[in-house]
Amino acid sequence: MSEDKPRIGVAMIGYAFMGRAHSQAWRNAHRFFDLPLEPHMAVLVGRDEQRATSAARQLGWDAVETDWRRVIEREDVDVVDICTPGDTHAEIAVAALEAGKHVLVEKPMANTVAEAETMAAAANAARGRGVHSMVGFTYRRVPAIKLAQQMVAEGRIGEVRQVRAQYLQDWLADADAPLSWRLDKEKAGSGALGDIGAHIIDLTQFVTGQRIAGVSGMLDTFVAERPVAESFSGLHGTGGTERGPVTVDDAAMFLGRLSSGAPAVFEATRFAWGRKNAIRIEVNGSTGSLAFDFEDMNVLHYYDATESTETAGFRRILVTEPDHPYIEAWWPAGHGLGYEHGFVHQAVDLVRALGAGEDPTPSFEDGLHVQRVLDAIERSSAQHSTYTEIGD
Amino acid sequence: MSEDKPRIGVAMIGYAFMGRAHSQAWRNAHRFFDLPLEPHMAVLVGRDEQRATSAARQLGWDAVETDWRRVIEREDVDVVDICTPGDTHAEIAVAALEAGKHVLVEKPMANTVAEAETMAAAANAARGRGVHSMVGFTYRRVPAIKLAQQMVAEGRIGEVRQVRAQYLQDWLADADAPLSWRLDKEKAGSGALGDIGAHIIDLTQFVTGQRIAGVSGMLDTFVAERPVAESFSGLHGTGGTERGPVTVDDAAMFLGRLSSGAPAVFEATRFAWGRKNAIRIEVNGSTGSLAFDFEDMNVLHYYDATESTETAGFRRILVTEPDHPYIEAWWPAGHGLGYEHGFVHQAVDLVRALGAGEDPTPSFEDGLHVQRVLDAIERSSAQHSTYTEIGD
Amino acid sequence: MSEDKPRIGVAMIGYAFMGRAHSQAWRNAHRFFDLPLEPHMAVLVGRDEQRATSAARQLGWDAVETDWRRVIEREDVDVVDICTPGDTHAEIAVAALEAGKHVLVEKPMANTVAEAETMAAAANAARGRGVHSMVGFTYRRVPAIKLAQQMVAEGRIGEVRQVRAQYLQDWLADADAPLSWRLDKEKAGSGALGDIGAHIIDLTQFVTGQRIAGVSGMLDTFVAERPVAESFSGLHGTGGTERGPVTVDDAAMFLGRLSSGAPAVFEATRFAWGRKNAIRIEVNGSTGSLAFDFEDMNVLHYYDATESTETAGFRRILVTEPDHPYIEAWWPAGHGLGYEHGFVHQAVDLVRALGAGEDPTPSFEDGLHVQRVLDAIERSSAQHSTYTEIGD
Amino acid sequence: MSEDKPRIGVAMIGYAFMGRAHSQAWRNAHRFFDLPLEPHMAVLVGRDEQRATSAARQLGWDAVETDWRRVIEREDVDVVDICTPGDTHAEIAVAALEAGKHVLVEKPMANTVAEAETMAAAANAARGRGVHSMVGFTYRRVPAIKLAQQMVAEGRIGEVRQVRAQYLQDWLADADAPLSWRLDKEKAGSGALGDIGAHIIDLTQFVTGQRIAGVSGMLDTFVAERPVAESFSGLHGTGGTERGPVTVDDAAMFLGRLSSGAPAVFEATRFAWGRKNAIRIEVNGSTGSLAFDFEDMNVLHYYDATESTETAGFRRILVTEPDHPYIEAWWPAGHGLGYEHGFVHQAVDLVRALGAGEDPTPSFEDGLHVQRVLDAIERSSAQHSTYTEIGD
Repeated sequence: MSEDKPRIGVAMIGYAFMGRAHSQAWRNAHRFFDLPLEPHMAVLVGRDEQRATSAARQLGWDAVETDWRRVIEREDVDVVDICTPGDTHAEIAVAALEAGKHVLVEKPMANTVAEAETMAAAANAARGRGVHSMVGFTYRRVPAIKLAQQMVAEGRIGEVRQVRAQYLQDWLADADAPLSWRLDKEKAGSGALGDIGAHIIDLTQFVTGQRIAGVSGMLDTFVAERPVAESFSGLHGTGGTERGPVTVDDAAMFLGRLSSGAPAVFEATRFAWGRKNAIRIEVNGSTGSLAFDFEDMNVLHYYDATESTETAGFRRILVTEPDHPYIEAWWPAGHGLGYEHGFVHQAVDLVRALGAGEDPTPSFEDGLHVQRVLDAIERSSAQHSTYTEIGD
Repeated sequence: MSEDKPRIGVAMIGYAFMGRAHSQAWRNAHRFFDLPLEPHMAVLVGRDEQRATSAARQLGWDAVETDWRRVIEREDVDVVDICTPGDTHAEIAVAALEAGKHVLVEKPMANTVAEAETMAAAANAARGRGVHSMVGFTYRRVPAIKLAQQMVAEGRIGEVRQVRAQYLQDWLADADAPLSWRLDKEKAGSGALGDIGAHIIDLTQFVTGQRIAGVSGMLDTFVAERPVAESFSGLHGTGGTERGPVTVDDAAMFLGRLSSGAPAVFEATRFAWGRKNAIRIEVNGSTGSLAFDFEDMNVLHYYDATESTETAGFRRILVTEPDHPYIEAWWPAGHGLGYEHGFVHQAVDLVRALGAGEDPTPSFEDGLHVQRVLDAIERSSAQHSTYTEIGD
Repeated sequence: MSEDKPRIGVAMIGYAFMGRAHSQAWRNAHRFFDLPLEPHMAVLVGRDEQRATSAARQLGWDAVETDWRRVIEREDVDVVDICTPGDTHAEIAVAALEAGKHVLVEKPMANTVAEAETMAAAANAARGRGVHSMVGFTYRRVPAIKLAQQMVAEGRIGEVRQVRAQYLQDWLADADAPLSWRLDKEKAGSGALGDIGAHIIDLTQFVTGQRIAGVSGMLDTFVAERPVAESFSGLHGTGGTERGPVTVDDAAMFLGRLSSGAPAVFEATRFAWGRKNAIRIEVNGSTGSLAFDFEDMNVLHYYDATESTETAGFRRILVTEPDHPYIEAWWPAGHGLGYEHGFVHQAVDLVRALGAGEDPTPSFEDGLHVQRVLDAIERSSAQHSTYTEIGD
Repeated sequence: MSEDKPRIGVAMIGYAFMGRAHSQAWRNAHRFFDLPLEPHMAVLVGRDEQRATSAARQLGWDAVETDWRRVIEREDVDVVDICTPGDTHAEIAVAALEAGKHVLVEKPMANTVAEAETMAAAANAARGRGVHSMVGFTYRRVPAIKLAQQMVAEGRIGEVRQVRAQYLQDWLADADAPLSWRLDKEKAGSGALGDIGAHIIDLTQFVTGQRIAGVSGMLDTFVAERPVAESFSGLHGTGGTERGPVTVDDAAMFLGRLSSGAPAVFEATRFAWGRKNAIRIEVNGSTGSLAFDFEDMNVLHYYDATESTETAGFRRILVTEPDHPYIEAWWPAGHGLGYEHGFVHQAVDLVRALGAGEDPTPSFEDGLHVQRVLDAIERSSAQHSTYTEIGD
C-alpha cells in the first residue's frame, strides 16, 4: 500500500531515556493523529556504532550515524531532534539550523544563558529562512495541563493571583545512589534546578500566559559525594567503591513574581522520599482555582468560585473526554493516557506547525527566558536570596 | 539493517476501538520488550475494502482482506487476532484453530455458553497440535493488577476472605445516547454484564487465584428505548429521530462465592454518572487488603495488618518501579502508563508464550468459565435472584 | 445567672460507648444551638451502682438509678434515652412510652420484627397522647449526609437510578479478637447486619426518600469461635484462654430494590482490614451522582451531569460552610466536625421537635421498617438468596 | 454527688470565635480525660456586660466581669485564658502573671517582638514563683500532628532534609469581603503572616524539633481596599458602602532554614479559592517522609523508604487508633475527631502540666521565637527578600 502523505525525515541524536521517549512519539504520532506530513525515522546518531545500531533496530530507526555533523548534511533529514546532555545542545542546534534543518531540542535548552542566547539568535535568523525550532517542554502537552492553560486564557479563574508549583522526586534521596552526568555541573549545567525546576518554570509561564519577572532563590546540596556509577539503567545505576563529588544542586527553592506582579512559590527536589514524579501546579485566580499533580496525570482539579458555596468544591475533572485537548485521537472517556503521550503530542504539534509553515512553541526565545530564570535563581542563591530581576 | 529475530505474522479481524488498541500493541511491543519473535502486522480484515484499506494504512498493517476466511489460509499469518462483535467469535476462532493458527480473541469470548464450549473444545484439540489460544482480558496486564495477583499468591494478605468489585461507567446514563450493536442482544450477547461485568469476573478470579462457584444476580435496564444511531465515533454516536429497543441489561448486580466459599459482591453499570472507567477491586484477606481503581490505574493500595496499628495504613503504591510487573521496559519511577499499555503487555505475554511453545493465559477454558458465570447470573436474575451454582 | 429556658429532663440508660456519645450530646447541644428547651442531664441508669455513679460523675449526670423502672416514674425525667443492648429495647421503650416519657432508642431499634412491631404500636399509641419517640440513626445528622438528602429531594441528581452502599470495618478481622455481647445473637440480634448494616439501610432510605422493597441476601461468619473476653475497653477487649462460639454474622451482602424499583447493592462487614469506619453511599441519578465516605466525613462528592463534559467532574464539597446543614452553629469553613457531632445534632433535632410538639424522625415506624429489611435479608440468606419482598 | 478532684478556676477574656472554642475545651476536657484538677469555668470577661452575660450563659461560664483587671484579683481564678486580639495580649498576660495567675494566650502571642520579649521575660520571672504560661498553638494537639512529631523524634524518617508547609484559606478571596480587625495592622499586627503563617512556623518547629534560623520573605496585599463591615458572624461579615484600607498582608511566602541548615518553603494565604483550612506540612527525611493536610485532619501520610520499593508507598494512617496520641479518651477506630478537639487537648495538656507543677509547652519563649520569625519575614520582605537571620 502506498502512503499518500509527504514524509518529513527525522534524525535523532542520543538514544537514552529521552531518545526512547522521542522514538515512541515519532513511531506513533501519525497512527492516531491526522498529520500533514508523515514522520520518517531516518537516522539515529550515537557515538558508539554498535550500540547505536542496536538501539536503532530496537527503536525503529532506518539508519545510524556516529557523528551528528553527518546528519545535518543528509537530504533525507528535515528535523534534527537533540536528546543529548545539555552541554552539547548549542553547538548542534546552531549548526543544524544553519544547515537548514528544523530543530527540536530537549530541555533545558542549554547549560548557560550565553549558550541559550546564541541558540535563540540562530533560531531567529533561521526563522527568516523558513527553518523552525522548538524546545521540548513536553509536560505542556499533557492534556490536563493544556486544559488548564486554556481555562486560564478563557478567564475561567479570573485574574491570576498566586501560583504554587513543585516538582518532587526521590531518586537521589538514597545517599548511595551513584553519580551520573546529571550530577556533573559541566554536563548538566545544574541539578534539580535545570533538570526539573525548568519544567515548573515553563509550566507556570505556559499556564498563566505570563513570564517570571524576578526571583529569590535558595539552592542546596544534601549529599556532597556519591559512588561513581559502574553501570546505568534509566535513572538508576550501580555504584562502585570509588566516590566522586556532586557538583550540582539537589534541591532548588525559589519565590518569584510573574510579569503581572503576582507572587509564586516554587520547589524542585530529587530528595522527597515517596514522591516519584510529582509535578504540581496550582493557580489561584480572582474567581477560581486550578490544580494539577502529574502523579494523577489524567486529572485536573478546578474550583469555580462563582458557584453557590452550598455545592462548590474542587471538581476532579477526568481529562479523558473527546472535547479535551488531544483526547479525541485516543480512547474513550476514562481510558487514561501515560507519560509518553506528551511526547506524541509534541511530535504532533511540531509536525502540524511545520506543515503549516508556522513557528512551533515553545520557541528558543521561550527556552532562553527559562534559562535566564534559572540563572537568576543561581545568582540570587549566591547573594543571600536577594530578589533578582530577569531581563527580557 | 537486518532484523535477527524470526517474525510472527498477525492478522487482525475488525478495526474499531479494539482494533486500534491491538494495533498499537503489535506495533510497539518489541520496541520496549525483548521478544523471542518479532510481530509482523501482516493483514487487517474488514468487510468494506475501502475503509479497511484506509484503516490498515493508518494503523500500520501491510495488507488487507475483506473475508476472514482468506487470512486463515495465508502462510504469512501465524496469529489470528479477533476484534469483532461477540456473535462472530466462535465461528472465526474455531476455523482459525483448525487451520493451525494461534488465536487471540477479544472478550467476552462468546455470546453463549454453547459457543464458548465449542471454542474451548477446539482450543483443547488445537493445543495437542501446538496451536494456542488466548482470551483478551487485558486488564490482567495492568501492572497494578498483576502486582495484586502476585501479592495474593505470595500470601501477602493471607487467606482471601472477601472481594468487592465494581465496573462503573456512565456513557449510557444519558437517556438520549443512541443505540449501537453493544445494546443489541443478538450482537453483544448481553449488556453491562458481558461487556464490563466479564472484566470484573475475570479480574476477581485472576487476582484471587480462585473461580466463582455460584452467584445470585439481578439485572436491570433503565432506558428501554433509544434513538437509532446515524453515526459513531468510539463509543459515542449521534442519534436520529427513529427509536429502537434496548435488548440488553444496563446494569448487573450480583453476589457470588469463590471456590473457597469466600463471598464477593459485584456491580457493573454504564449509568454511574461521573464514573468513566472505574474498574475497582478490593480483596480483604486474613492479614491484609488490596484495593485498585482503574481511574488511578498506576496505583495499588495495600494494607498490611501485621504492622503496628500506630503506623499501619493503606499504602498508595505507585506501581511504576523497575521491580514492578512490566515496568522495567518502560519509564523511570513515577512516569505512569496508560490504558493502551495493557494491550502491549498482552501482546508481549502472548508472543513470549508462543515463542516458548507454552499455553498463554487466560485460556479458552478460562473464557468458558467466565461465560458460565455470566450465564448463571442471567439465570439467577430470571429466577428471583436464587443462588445458582456454576459447573466446571 | 438564671437560665430563662424551660428544662427538659433526660434519663439515660446504659453508659458504654453509646452512653458516652449521648452524654456529650446532652452536655453540649444547647451550647451551640438555640434550643426551645434546655437539656437537663437528670439521671443515669446502670445496674452496678458504684460503676454507674462513677460514670455519672465523669459524664455529667446529676443522679444515678440502678433500675430503669425507677426513672420512668421520676417527675424530673421527660426523655428516656436507651443506650443498652438491643434485647432490652422493647421492654424499656414500651414501658417508658406508657409512662408518658418521650423515648430515644439506639439502633437497631430491636432484635426482632415482633419486638419492633410492639414498639411501633406503643409509639403510635403514645403519639396520640403527645408522647414522642425516635430511633438513633445518628449518621443521618452528619452534615454531608443531610446535604445529600436535601440535594436528592431538590432534584439535583434527577431520578434515582442506582445506589451502592457499604459499611466496612476491620475490628473483628483479627481472628483472636475476643467475644463480646455484639457477637451473641441473644443480646445483639445479629452481627454486622444489624449493627452496621442497619445504618446503610437507613441512610439509603433517608438519602433517597424511598423504602427498600425487597432484598436478596447472603450472610457469612468467617471466624466461628473466639476467645471469651476478660475485659473490654470500647470495642476492644482482651481475651483469655477459654473460647466460645460466634452466633452472629461477620459480614452481610445484599442486593435490593427501592420502592421505585431502582436497584441497590449493599455490604456490611467487620473484616475489611484497613477500613475503620468506612460508611459509603453513592447514589446515581438521571442527571448526576452523589458519593460519601465517613472516613472523610466532612466531604460530599457531587457530579452534575448537566455541566459541559469539558469541565464536569466530581466536586469535593467540603461540607463546612455556614449554609450547610447544622454548620452555622459551629466553626468557620474548613474547620471540620467529628464523629460525636452527629449525636449533638440528634439531640438538637429531638429537642426542637419536642419543643414544637412535633414528631421527630426517624420514627419507630421507620425503625420497624429497617427491622423488616434485616429480617428479610436473614430469611433470603437462609433460602438460597431468593429475592424476598418486604411488607409495610 | 460530690466531686473528689480539686478544682482549677479559669477566667476567659474574649468570647468570639476563639472564646467559643476555648469554652468547649474547658467544658469537656475532664469528661473524657483523667485530669488531676477539674476545670471550673469561673468567669468570662467582656467589655459589654449584656453581651458578655449572654455569652457566659450560652457557653457555660459561672460569672461575668467587664474589666480583665478584676479577674486577675479573683481568688477563684487560677488560669487566665486570653482570647482577645493580639494588641492586648502583652498587657493582660504580664499583669496576670504578676498577679500569680497561670496564663494561656492565643496565638500569635503578640503583635511585636518587643511585646513578646516583655511577655517572655514576665513568664520567665513567674516560672520561678511556680506560675506557668503557654501559647495557644492548638494545631500541635491534632493527633496526626502529634504523631508526626513523635515519629520524627523517634527517627522514623531519619534526619530531616526538607520541609514544605502551607496554610491556604480563601475567606478573603472575594474582593468584597468586608474589613475586620484582622485586616487592621494596629489590632492584628499582620495579616496572613501572623494569623495563619504563625501556625505553620510553629508546626514546622514542633514537628522537626528544630527552630527556624533564617528566612527570605515576600509579602503581598492583593486587595487594598474593602467595604467597612457592618456586622460579623464568625469570620464572615456584611459590608456597607463605606470602604477602608487593608493595612496587612494578604499572603506571605517565605523560604527558610532550620537550625540544622535544612531548607523549608512556606506559604500562607487567605486567597486560595477552594482551600478552606488547608494546613499542610510535609517533612522529607533521609529515610522517609511524613505529610499532613488539615482538610483531612484525621490522617497522616507516611512513607517508609526502608521498605522494598515493590510495596513501598505513602501509608494513609487513619490516626484514630487507641495507641495514637489523645485517641484512647475518645471513640473507636475510624470515628474521627474535629477541629475543636485540638482545644480540648490543649486544656488537657495545660491542666496536666499545672497539676504536675511542670511547664506546659509551647512556652512564651517559643512564642517569642515565632514572633522573631514573623518579624524577620517582614524585614526580609522589605529588603528585596534578602535572607535574614533570626537571633535567639
